[in-house]
Amino acid sequence: MMEEDMENGRSYQERPRTFSTVRSKSSIPLVFRLLMRINPRALIIFSLLVFSGVLYVGASTSPIVVFVFCICTLSLFFSLYLTKWVLAKDEGPPEMSEISDAIRDGAEGFFRTQYGTISKMACILAFVILGIYLFRTTTPQQEASGLGRATSAYITVASFLLGALCSGIAGFVGMWVSVRANVRVSSAARRSAREALQIAVRAGGFSAIVVVCMAVFGVAILYSVFYVWLGVDAPGSMKVTDLPLLLVGYGFGASFVALFAQLGGGIYTKAADVGADLVGKVEQGIPEDDPRNPAVIADLVGDNVGDCAARGADLFESIAAEIISAMILGGTMAQRCKIEDPSGFILFPLVVHSFDLVVSSVGILSIRGTRDSGLISPIEDPMSIMQKGYSVTIMLAVVTFGVSTRWLLYTEQAPSAWLNFALCGLVGIITAYTFVWISKYYTDYKHEPVRLLALSSSTGHGTNIIAGVSLGLESTALPVLVISVAIISAYWLGQTSGLVDESGNPTGGLFGTAVATMGMLSTAGYVLTMDMFGPIADNAGGIVEMSQQPESVREITDVLDAVGNTTKATTKGFAIGSAALASFLLFSAYMDEVASFAQLPFKEVDIAVPEIFVGGLLGSMLIFLFSAWACSAVGKTAQEVVNEVRRQFIERPGIMDYKEKPDYGRCVAIVASASLREMIRPGALAIISPMAVGVIFRILGHSTGQPLLGAKVVASMLMFATVAGILMALFLNTAGGAWDNAKKYIETGALGGKGSESHKAAVTGDTVGDPFKDTAGPSLHVLIKMLATITLVMAPIFL
Amino acid sequence: MMEEDMENGRSYQERPRTFSTVRSKSSIPLVFRLLMRINPRALIIFSLLVFSGVLYVGASTSPIVVFVFCICTLSLFFSLYLTKWVLAKDEGPPEMSEISDAIRDGAEGFFRTQYGTISKMACILAFVILGIYLFRTTTPQQEASGLGRATSAYITVASFLLGALCSGIAGFVGMWVSVRANVRVSSAARRSAREALQIAVRAGGFSAIVVVCMAVFGVAILYSVFYVWLGVDAPGSMKVTDLPLLLVGYGFGASFVALFAQLGGGIYTKAADVGADLVGKVEQGIPEDDPRNPAVIADLVGDNVGDCAARGADLFESIAAEIISAMILGGTMAQRCKIEDPSGFILFPLVVHSFDLVVSSVGILSIRGTRDSGLISPIEDPMSIMQKGYSVTIMLAVVTFGVSTRWLLYTEQAPSAWLNFALCGLVGIITAYTFVWISKYYTDYKHEPVRLLALSSSTGHGTNIIAGVSLGLESTALPVLVISVAIISAYWLGQTSGLVDESGNPTGGLFGTAVATMGMLSTAGYVLTMDMFGPIADNAGGIVEMSQQPESVREITDVLDAVGNTTKATTKGFAIGSAALASFLLFSAYMDEVASFAQLPFKEVDIAVPEIFVGGLLGSMLIFLFSAWACSAVGKTAQEVVNEVRRQFIERPGIMDYKEKPDYGRCVAIVASASLREMIRPGALAIISPMAVGVIFRILGHSTGQPLLGAKVVASMLMFATVAGILMALFLNTAGGAWDNAKKYIETGALGGKGSESHKAAVTGDTVGDPFKDTAGPSLHVLIKMLATITLVMAPIFL
Repeated sequence: MMEEDMENGRSYQERPRTFSTVRSKSSIPLVFRLLMRINPRALIIFSLLVFSGVLYVGASTSPIVVFVFCICTLSLFFSLYLTKWVLAKDEGPPEMSEISDAIRDGAEGFFRTQYGTISKMACILAFVILGIYLFRTTTPQQEASGLGRATSAYITVASFLLGALCSGIAGFVGMWVSVRANVRVSSAARRSAREALQIAVRAGGFSAIVVVCMAVFGVAILYSVFYVWLGVDAPGSMKVTDLPLLLVGYGFGASFVALFAQLGGGIYTKAADVGADLVGKVEQGIPEDDPRNPAVIADLVGDNVGDCAARGADLFESIAAEIISAMILGGTMAQRCKIEDPSGFILFPLVVHSFDLVVSSVGILSIRGTRDSGLISPIEDPMSIMQKGYSVTIMLAVVTFGVSTRWLLYTEQAPSAWLNFALCGLVGIITAYTFVWISKYYTDYKHEPVRLLALSSSTGHGTNIIAGVSLGLESTALPVLVISVAIISAYWLGQTSGLVDESGNPTGGLFGTAVATMGMLSTAGYVLTMDMFGPIADNAGGIVEMSQQPESVREITDVLDAVGNTTKATTKGFAIGSAALASFLLFSAYMDEVASFAQLPFKEVDIAVPEIFVGGLLGSMLIFLFSAWACSAVGKTAQEVVNEVRRQFIERPGIMDYKEKPDYGRCVAIVASASLREMIRPGALAIISPMAVGVIFRILGHSTGQPLLGAKVVASMLMFATVAGILMALFLNTAGGAWDNAKKYIETGALGGKGSESHKAAVTGDTVGDPFKDTAGPSLHVLIKMLATITLVMAPIFL
Repeated sequence: MMEEDMENGRSYQERPRTFSTVRSKSSIPLVFRLLMRINPRALIIFSLLVFSGVLYVGASTSPIVVFVFCICTLSLFFSLYLTKWVLAKDEGPPEMSEISDAIRDGAEGFFRTQYGTISKMACILAFVILGIYLFRTTTPQQEASGLGRATSAYITVASFLLGALCSGIAGFVGMWVSVRANVRVSSAARRSAREALQIAVRAGGFSAIVVVCMAVFGVAILYSVFYVWLGVDAPGSMKVTDLPLLLVGYGFGASFVALFAQLGGGIYTKAADVGADLVGKVEQGIPEDDPRNPAVIADLVGDNVGDCAARGADLFESIAAEIISAMILGGTMAQRCKIEDPSGFILFPLVVHSFDLVVSSVGILSIRGTRDSGLISPIEDPMSIMQKGYSVTIMLAVVTFGVSTRWLLYTEQAPSAWLNFALCGLVGIITAYTFVWISKYYTDYKHEPVRLLALSSSTGHGTNIIAGVSLGLESTALPVLVISVAIISAYWLGQTSGLVDESGNPTGGLFGTAVATMGMLSTAGYVLTMDMFGPIADNAGGIVEMSQQPESVREITDVLDAVGNTTKATTKGFAIGSAALASFLLFSAYMDEVASFAQLPFKEVDIAVPEIFVGGLLGSMLIFLFSAWACSAVGKTAQEVVNEVRRQFIERPGIMDYKEKPDYGRCVAIVASASLREMIRPGALAIISPMAVGVIFRILGHSTGQPLLGAKVVASMLMFATVAGILMALFLNTAGGAWDNAKKYIETGALGGKGSESHKAAVTGDTVGDPFKDTAGPSLHVLIKMLATITLVMAPIFL
């Protein structure tokens, strides 16, 4: 024991601790640099002016909007406090901050290039949308209400661009804070586990609050600006219940950027990870995140661009899409029921997410580190601390949700309707909880499935893969049952709420489903915090390993990393559940939109019609093809990394003895350019195929005399793609997570432990699972919602 | 070189060539033994009497039925000629026939137990159906036409049992001939490659002809018996256009048996294969089919029960289901168009398959072995010989298809309709060709995809699996596009055929799709021959290897085996394509049936209704769960085999030096009992879940006032399951085939050849692919059609 420590100590001294080739240059984006040059006082005055302007517009719209604005502003201040708190922590010794600088450079460099490409594509798409809306036919009705061709074109394009911009900012914020927090977590881990945990949670909390805030703020501002500009509800103009339909561009912009962010980032992170592991771990036998591995910096960069930036953009568009679809449905229902003041139904989602900001902030603050700071504490289970925070958040959310329904959804026509909707919210919250529990059951090695998977590794690589695939396929069953029960019970609660249309038919069903979705997302802030926590802890662990800290520090970051893996897996379940519900809502919104565009009834999508059935076939196929291309992108890029790393080990034999430095930069450059190249093909498939199908079947419908055929085929494509996408994403995420944890289980010493044949088979499973759970799976979440919003925005070309 | 030969020679002499522990006992089924005891003359007279009775009933129905009967009878005689020809060949030296006896014992033993279990389940289900039909409500109309509760209950149950029985016979015939032909092919391989090929083709042809014959004969007999019994078309009785609906029980019985046959057989063959390979090939380093491997007999038995018996049952129910659905659609259309003599439209499918029997027989005979018999010929490419036969068959099929359409589908009302339908048939034939081509492209190592897959093995097990999964997922795209084009163009050809209903609307669309499906299956006999050829050649290779024949004989069987792999892969593509089309037709038949049962219009399945959407979600989930359970059944059983084989190698160390004999029987017993146990769970899932969903939503619909909700939810479940099932089956089959051939490609010496690291990674891929392509994939074909028929038969409980 002593000898081993001595040896460790010696070799630790011998190893060079700095990486002078890695430069850290200033890479703050232009916007921020310009802002910093302005006199701070002028900036404050300018901000105040803007805020009062926004407040004035809000006040002219509805007092509810003012409430939302205030909560958002307060939350932004809270998030500033969180950043200041995190940034005030020390960056640790120079060997740590140098590594962190290298990671920051890589991440910010890739972010710039990636978002440069994405913004170019977004601009092209903006022109396409503009063209489509300028040349579409409008009805006299629309013209009369002040919503002519040009106006609606500008509105759609402006919301699209704003959505894209906000999505970009959401991604940037996620990455910005994580590349700064990682080193501070590493440094804190030298002092106390609890402090390290707190820093990671608060850093994650910062970006979570900003992301939720931006989604709410963005929609609220757009809503009130359009309200004032178009003079809504004045005689002869547009009705307020039609207003939310104008916001769909925002959701599409958000999901467009999120799709490419997730694809590019997901390919980056997993190609670097797989490539680094295959040569480093398997061929050279060096540990993970070892400084001798030329791909290690690329791997750590990947955590930031793949997990932080992409997940930020993903959750941002989830919330934005869900808010907009619920607003549309609320408006439609209020109109059908002839409710006098429909603004409560329309603005309900904004209020729910304002309360989300409040309860999540409380949840984040409930994780405190003061009690044991300064002492070398026994390591507590960070998972239980996080879980406690989640319980606090959820309980508060139940209360505030009830308050919001009573406040906004109370109507004289149906005095008990709010109670039904409050129950719908409860259905959503329970669904979220159940989803989290199911993904934990299938991916945590405390439970049977992962243990059986680990056991199957003992008979070889092949049986491990067969068992993992079956586990993943089987794990789709329970979530589908839960989501089915949730949809039907929320719909039923809504139908029986007492809200009826003119002819006395109950109409609250779909809105009930919408409220359940909001219930599910009513703790989105805290869930996103848990999600962001993972990659920050992972990175901190990497920095600790690379700067060769003592074993005790590594232990702390290892525990945090393991917790991060679990939270990441569970939040994915959450993301799919909400995607399924949101997509079903957007589908209804799409049918309303098409009917109002085409001035034709569009009540059903009948899959007994051959063309519509074919649409479904094509939609499901889109999911399979997209997953194929996302996985193969990782495979191809990883092979490039493997070849480069092998080359470096051959050409610089001194690397293994720490005599030569590996060229980290080359691996970063290879992964960056490859993932930018590889993200285009699946992304373009997702954008172009619904448009192409819609246009082809529109033409076919015209020539065979079937009205609305294009729109109907696209609708069926969307629904089949949603169903297939949910199942495929569940399969990919769960199988990937289970393989990862089966490997971890064996590494705890079970079935022969590290280095045994079982372990090798488990590593194979883990490698296969990497692109499943971190590239294809999460990209499918985004794809599902992107398809729903693209059909909404592109509806004019299907008609 | 000389020395090596010498050594081979010596060790060859030293090895014991007989397996005396393996007993061969008489195991001819009871029915055959009873038949053999009867005086042959009495038998002939009895057969003649039965035939004249059948002919008389047929003649009272329609001259077309007489034509069908005659062709079927001639084909049965032809198949008798083929068996006689095959059985006249010699069984080779005693060491061969001993092995063959062991295989026969194992296969017949498993068959008896398996079909015992299946027949018990079928009887239970028959009682369930009887109960359902006896207690359902009937309309006065139905009562008046002589189709009361009791009559329709007996009819449905009788057709169900007859379908189940015929399906069982189809499986038995497939296995019966293959366990007799395998040794004759091995023996012939010692003389000439061409003769071996011819024996395998004729043996496969025998069971193919019997299977097609039984499907056609069975339906035709049922049709004419019901026709005469119910006094169809007499005033006050049933109309002939409603008659085909009574036949659905036959299709359900066929697919019920086929599902369990495929599941049990598929689990058996792959568990034995994977288990034998994992210990034999990977751990002990002995070649495939080596007599020292205790699981080798189980593996060879598996080829017979998994591939021959199950594929026979599968194709039988494909053809039966497709004939019945096309008859239903033909009848419905003829009724709508008020065609005077609708029998042509109804009986068209029977005639198409009668011609199928003729052209396939010609194709089988076109493969001749006389030219080089007796000489040791240079090995020709057997694939090109088979392809030539296929081309002959297809060209003849095009001609006969045109003749059948002109003969049966010509009507005064639309004189050019038959031409349109002939073009539909052409669409089907082209679709079949394209499907075969696409599966060849993705699974043959002459093309790029498999080469890239092999290349990805060079970077490890993980990248090989990622690449294989992406290849499989990607391979779904082209078939879906082809099937989409086929559905839409055939529908369009049918719509424009000139056939209109009373109000002048074109109505031929769906029948057009049905005709395309028939076109696709119009060479089913030859395709099934190619399919059956594979396992016979595989088995022959095993016998050659086990009886340690010289290298030259092995080379011949190896080539035949490789060709068998390709034909097996391509016929799977064919099976999926026809399943997709047939299922779409059965779906329409289901809607007609429900409407006629419920006396309510049932025109559309609107997926915008939450419950119906949930039905779709559940249908897709069913496919994922079924595949999961099918794969994990193989995994679990294979692990049992691995443990048993490891145990034998440890307890009997002399096995490796040929000093002790392995206990083949134990492996056979383990695999047999495990696969019987494991087939129940996925099978029960497939049977019970549509019934449960239908009943639950029926109750829900009653309580919420939605008529036909149960039936609609089941319809949507069926459609989503069909779409997901097609995609999943394509994915599983292609990925499995590609992995298999990537391994074979490396074994030709590429990328380091046998024993290299790339080869090990490729073997892992092959192991993973085994349950994909031979258990889960083919079971999904059957599942899709089983779902379509079960909903038809069980429709009364959804209402």
